[in-house]
Amino acid sequence: MILIQAASYVVRDADRVERGVDVLIEGDRIVQVGRVDVRRAAGANVLDGRGRAVVPGFVNAHTHLYQSMLKGRRDDLPLVEWCEEVTFPFVRRVLDRAWHGGETEIGRLWSAVAAIEMVRSGITTFVDMDMDLEGVISTWLDVGIRGVAAMELVDRWVPDDLMLPLERTKEDVLRLIETWHRVPKESPLVTVFLGPSAPFTSSDELLRFIQEQAGAHDLGIQTHVSETAWEVEQSVRTTGRTPLAFLDSIGFLSRPITAAHCVHLTEEEIELAARRGVAAIYNPKSNMKLGSGIAPIVALQRAGATVALGTDGAASNDLLDPFEEMRAAALLQKVAAQDPTALGARDAFRFATEGGARACRIDAGTIDPGRLADVALIQLGGAHLFRLTDEIVPSLVYCARADDVESVVINGRLVMKEREILTVDERSLLAEAKRVGERYA
Amino acid sequence: MILIQAASYVVRDADRVERGVDVLIEGDRIVQVGRVDVRRAAGANVLDGRGRAVVPGFVNAHTHLYQSMLKGRRDDLPLVEWCEEVTFPFVRRVLDRAWHGGETEIGRLWSAVAAIEMVRSGITTFVDMDMDLEGVISTWLDVGIRGVAAMELVDRWVPDDLMLPLERTKEDVLRLIETWHRVPKESPLVTVFLGPSAPFTSSDELLRFIQEQAGAHDLGIQTHVSETAWEVEQSVRTTGRTPLAFLDSIGFLSRPITAAHCVHLTEEEIELAARRGVAAIYNPKSNMKLGSGIAPIVALQRAGATVALGTDGAASNDLLDPFEEMRAAALLQKVAAQDPTALGARDAFRFATEGGARACRIDAGTIDPGRLADVALIQLGGAHLFRLTDEIVPSLVYCARADDVESVVINGRLVMKEREILTVDERSLLAEAKRVGERYA
Repeated sequence: MILIQAASYVVRDADRVERGVDVLIEGDRIVQVGRVDVRRAAGANVLDGRGRAVVPGFVNAHTHLYQSMLKGRRDDLPLVEWCEEVTFPFVRRVLDRAWHGGETEIGRLWSAVAAIEMVRSGITTFVDMDMDLEGVISTWLDVGIRGVAAMELVDRWVPDDLMLPLERTKEDVLRLIETWHRVPKESPLVTVFLGPSAPFTSSDELLRFIQEQAGAHDLGIQTHVSETAWEVEQSVRTTGRTPLAFLDSIGFLSRPITAAHCVHLTEEEIELAARRGVAAIYNPKSNMKLGSGIAPIVALQRAGATVALGTDGAASNDLLDPFEEMRAAALLQKVAAQDPTALGARDAFRFATEGGARACRIDAGTIDPGRLADVALIQLGGAHLFRLTDEIVPSLVYCARADDVESVVINGRLVMKEREILTVDERSLLAEAKRVGERYA
Repeated sequence: MILIQAASYVVRDADRVERGVDVLIEGDRIVQVGRVDVRRAAGANVLDGRGRAVVPGFVNAHTHLYQSMLKGRRDDLPLVEWCEEVTFPFVRRVLDRAWHGGETEIGRLWSAVAAIEMVRSGITTFVDMDMDLEGVISTWLDVGIRGVAAMELVDRWVPDDLMLPLERTKEDVLRLIETWHRVPKESPLVTVFLGPSAPFTSSDELLRFIQEQAGAHDLGIQTHVSETAWEVEQSVRTTGRTPLAFLDSIGFLSRPITAAHCVHLTEEEIELAARRGVAAIYNPKSNMKLGSGIAPIVALQRAGATVALGTDGAASNDLLDPFEEMRAAALLQKVAAQDPTALGARDAFRFATEGGARACRIDAGTIDPGRLADVALIQLGGAHLFRLTDEIVPSLVYCARADDVESVVINGRLVMKEREILTVDERSLLAEAKRVGERYA
């Protein structure tokens, strides 16, 4: 049992804030918000909420954890050169040793580095799109963070040695589902999604297989959609349709998918996304860094589509930081529209909490009794957070920083307390990640 | 004397990095970079540089400190409504009591809050554009931060009760120069600039007075130039010229000025800026938040203009954070050009250090013997800074956060050590700022 006592602010969601109340967590759930009778909370782990804000844990709805290995490597390159000179050679060595030598240590360790960065930033759930997930998921359980394993599937476009034969891919998918989907069953920390990398990297056969499996096991799907103008042209040339319209034409949107980026959607596709229940994952910093463009988030929101927020991988961000991402989310729409009211702090906060939870299909994203206990406690005492207003959501979105996150509860477990990770030995884990990583550099 | 020992990285400027060397500071200057003989440094205050980067202190070349009072108040409003509903009423109360009642406490206290936020973020010099500076400058000396007092001067457009009569303004300017310009004389922490708020808020008489005084006392000048499209139209309508071209036409660019924003410069004005030695102050986050537009920084840089970085006031940012500002500086140009190579980490770092020092006319901005000792020490151990590369400038620009700044030296004085402000009692100062601020809320 965890009792957060007398929190200065409990941000139940972007529009509901309470002041001076307690939050009680029992098992994996939030059980009470209000004045909690201390006798009910006897023996609870007590956290002081004074001078702090309680918020729903942030959801990073699109990332690639392995890219933490590539952080800061040869920045400021065009996408294709960056892939060819930086990413592919490194990833090739990593995948080669994983697929052919069974060496999964580097993936496991750097996945943990990314998971720790996220916990330290108040992220409690993420979607990891990765080709090799078997080795890394156990690390998420060690750290105690909630992860969606969106297995990245390709059978076209990518260099041959970065793909497995389709038959092997299918076997891996089935094994992943069997081993890891909804683990543990009663209170899942791990959920499996299927992740066709993008429409243009998937054969019809692969897409059909994904649909069958998603239907059979009730799996979510994540794919990259219209991240770059190039990809849209490519789709029109080869299929006669823009990417989301193409997916709809083959029936792929009969299950609601999560679509990362959505930068170059057409007006028709924006309506289509809303109609088909597509969750658009907005990755503002990555779209800026790669020069991909500005996603039509205001229009998507107006059309009624779910919007969630993602950092994308560390190679194109380079942080896994929900505060900077919320700021970028609002600021980029404002400047694109040349209108400071285009998208506000509350919208950005909603994308990073409720929107993300919906995209991940988890029962979290607000502070309400009955919801999963994914919660962050934010220290408000820093000079940069000092202010003469009680409006807390704009202050959190525009002023708070990852380092203000003091404690984090995930699935009812206290994972970080007063900036100390309680679940793993952070220092030795980072050192080990460096030692092993340097073997591949 | 201060000795930084065995720094993992000494970032002398954006293009010169040394590893494993010492930095020796004596009086107000950097005196040695390299292996320092410990006998030479006997009695020095020793800082451990292992696992850390030494960087030139960051320069915030355009801000309004008093706006820290307005942080987080009614965000997401259009500029004019925001001015009328939020800023003007509050500022009116503050200025009224300052000008007519001699009450300058709130300005002094919130200026200190902003100064502390900046020191904690690695900023060692700032330009403060403010109408009432008399009361606040002594605070900068208390905190020990280097400040440029750019007295904001208006005699048009602004509501009458927010302006002083021109004769009184002139008297205030002369007194400010006499009291505060280059104080202390031998190693100035305070420099006075003159700050005509914008061309459209200044009469010809005011601009003439400013030019005379700048010439007589060798003062720098800062003004807002072409921040909004509205302001450019206004200038064309009333003067027949765009703002920078207008200033040139009346001879105002005969002394090199610093021009905040420069969002809507014409191609001719970009050439003009370079030719006249105008320093363009780029405020990417503020320009985004207010929906003002995207400054043509790539073109300004190509033309040879000096570019510096500013946060603008906390009301439109809402942080005074050089790391987020460097990231936004690069990312915004990349997405605007749809080209990830448009502006890189080294450019952004240069704007925030050398460019800023040049704009402020101070002998700092690089780590070199003989320069003013304005230096920040950055802790590199956090999970978010963990990486497999030795390229430190991109890592600092894209991954480091304000909270990684561990110690700060300004003018040879250790102002922050291991996250503790040594010069003032931060906690009681913040409490006092809140107490006094609430009287005006």
